[in-house]
Amino acid sequence: MNIKITGTGSYIPTEKVTNSDFAKHEFLNEDGSNFNLSNDIIAEKFVEITGILERRYASDDMVNSDMAFIAAKKAIASSKIDPETLDYIIFAHNYGDIKSHTIQSDTVPSLATRVKYLLQIKNPKCVAYDVLFGCPGWIEGVIQAQAFIRAGMAKKCLVIGSETLSRVVDKHDRDSMIYSDGAGAAIIEATDEPGGILAHESATYSFDEAKYLYFGNSFNKDEDENIRYIKMYGRKIYEFALSNVPQAMASCLEKSGIPITSLKKILIHQANEKMDEAIVNRFYKRYKMDTPKDIMPMSIHKLGNSSVATVPTLYDLILNDEVENHKIEKGDILLFASVGAGMNINAFIYQY
Amino acid sequence: MNIKITGTGSYIPTEKVTNSDFAKHEFLNEDGSNFNLSNDIIAEKFVEITGILERRYASDDMVNSDMAFIAAKKAIASSKIDPETLDYIIFAHNYGDIKSHTIQSDTVPSLATRVKYLLQIKNPKCVAYDVLFGCPGWIEGVIQAQAFIRAGMAKKCLVIGSETLSRVVDKHDRDSMIYSDGAGAAIIEATDEPGGILAHESATYSFDEAKYLYFGNSFNKDEDENIRYIKMYGRKIYEFALSNVPQAMASCLEKSGIPITSLKKILIHQANEKMDEAIVNRFYKRYKMDTPKDIMPMSIHKLGNSSVATVPTLYDLILNDEVENHKIEKGDILLFASVGAGMNINAFIYQY
Repeated sequence: MNIKITGTGSYIPTEKVTNSDFAKHEFLNEDGSNFNLSNDIIAEKFVEITGILERRYASDDMVNSDMAFIAAKKAIASSKIDPETLDYIIFAHNYGDIKSHTIQSDTVPSLATRVKYLLQIKNPKCVAYDVLFGCPGWIEGVIQAQAFIRAGMAKKCLVIGSETLSRVVDKHDRDSMIYSDGAGAAIIEATDEPGGILAHESATYSFDEAKYLYFGNSFNKDEDENIRYIKMYGRKIYEFALSNVPQAMASCLEKSGIPITSLKKILIHQANEKMDEAIVNRFYKRYKMDTPKDIMPMSIHKLGNSSVATVPTLYDLILNDEVENHKIEKGDILLFASVGAGMNINAFIYQY
Repeated sequence: MNIKITGTGSYIPTEKVTNSDFAKHEFLNEDGSNFNLSNDIIAEKFVEITGILERRYASDDMVNSDMAFIAAKKAIASSKIDPETLDYIIFAHNYGDIKSHTIQSDTVPSLATRVKYLLQIKNPKCVAYDVLFGCPGWIEGVIQAQAFIRAGMAKKCLVIGSETLSRVVDKHDRDSMIYSDGAGAAIIEATDEPGGILAHESATYSFDEAKYLYFGNSFNKDEDENIRYIKMYGRKIYEFALSNVPQAMASCLEKSGIPITSLKKILIHQANEKMDEAIVNRFYKRYKMDTPKDIMPMSIHKLGNSSVATVPTLYDLILNDEVENHKIEKGDILLFASVGAGMNINAFIYQY
């Protein structure tokens, strides 16, 4: 028995936000002091590091689970399965459903239940739950689906990664320019076809790293201290990721028994272009190789960092021929990898 | 290989809240109109139905993950495992960490990561994630731990159920008297000892039932409509539970191959005493039996409904001889069952 991704779908929100849309934001340092830089220069440096030119925000009339539903419907259609045959709906997110211009996360019932409801699935044996695992949540959901299939508890699972980070950003924090909204989904199935998931790796580093991403106050000290936002220590995350992600990717590849030279694509969480490039370069350096051209498709330039949604969205876009110069063909070996709040790292090797 | 619970722990918050503490609350109907009943009569009827005399609230200086940490520490101590050997920390909750007197849920990093941090576990291969599955979340976490063990991905898992419902209650809603705070935890291990988890059952009913428990506005129409609270349609939940939980329990028992007469205890989610009694009576009626005396230990009278925490806390209290007239002995067959937001139902048969 093999375990394959038999369908994918994504939802890219309609509201396009360019870097110049941040021109009038008053960016502050963590201590509330002013930057001695103009917003133009901040945006320029920002693009250099992150690669982000635009990001997408969910429209005001939508919440996270609405986006997820659209991505899920597409994934089901592309897999051609009957949705009533799904054994699990696994929904990875981090902040629940947050209505536009409000600050509360709505998580009851679970977002997976909401998607199941919107899909009008009747079968009660389709178990719907949410998983919180930082940005690597969608990959972790795939790993969990795989566990249920291997344990004989499931044959078909829908795994969704969907998030509206635009609703937890501090507009006085430059990092707010990184975050975006989006949804990606995939159907994971037991199959007799060759290929599929060949190995996986998962880890939580919390001893020193638990609070590298956290919920904190605005950098504007005049704001209500009872209102908190997504916050990160970018420099620490960068160093952490560089020290630990290449090693996790290598360990996963070694478990699979696949030689490095057979690797066709690396689909990595779209966190930050420079960081992703540095991770992949260091990964190849372990094998005394230069990073092959076109190994790492990127969607961050136009889509920003939509947390759990980046990896399934990127994969869906490539399969739909929407990422220039990147194609995936039968038999290709792919490495999926992510890093984020926890700090969590995970990866899997996949043969298409 | 069998899969057993090798350690348990719980945390019962120190702040005791009696029904008379609600005497000055202005209870309203859903439409904002006044009750034509005094709070004394409301409290009397409330006790008749729910059995709740007291409940516990977390002290202001604690959040959900702080309670969970204490329960987890006790579970680890009682199992005598080295915490560094844990493969998973699975934390079931519904609302994250909510600081006292605030309305935002803090879920990044995951609460499982926070517990891992507080336990000072260094091993990165101990994967920490949160599961959202309504009140049945802790049982679902046990079922997931079991899947990882059966799939060869884990040997030892810590499964926590912890919640601070007191921080999402509408004080104008009579149902606010039901909810309480608490934490329970258990170590789930692969073992060669006889017994353990013999069968499980899990289901999500969302087609008509998704919004039986939801996040809604205060019954006081003067309150800010951007602030929402835990809300439920109690009558619908009661009818749903009575129609579906006994059948799920029976299906689980049948899968295990254990005769009904061998069942020693039923540990059911402490949602409402009358509902729990009606469920268990209907379960035995399927077998044309009267409900055996002392089959169903209850903690609801003093502890209220602490969501995901009720089942592991009850089990821990019995093992520690803190529930009158209830003992569990080697070889005893137990049925664990829960129902809650989703609507989700799950159960497992366990030989102690």
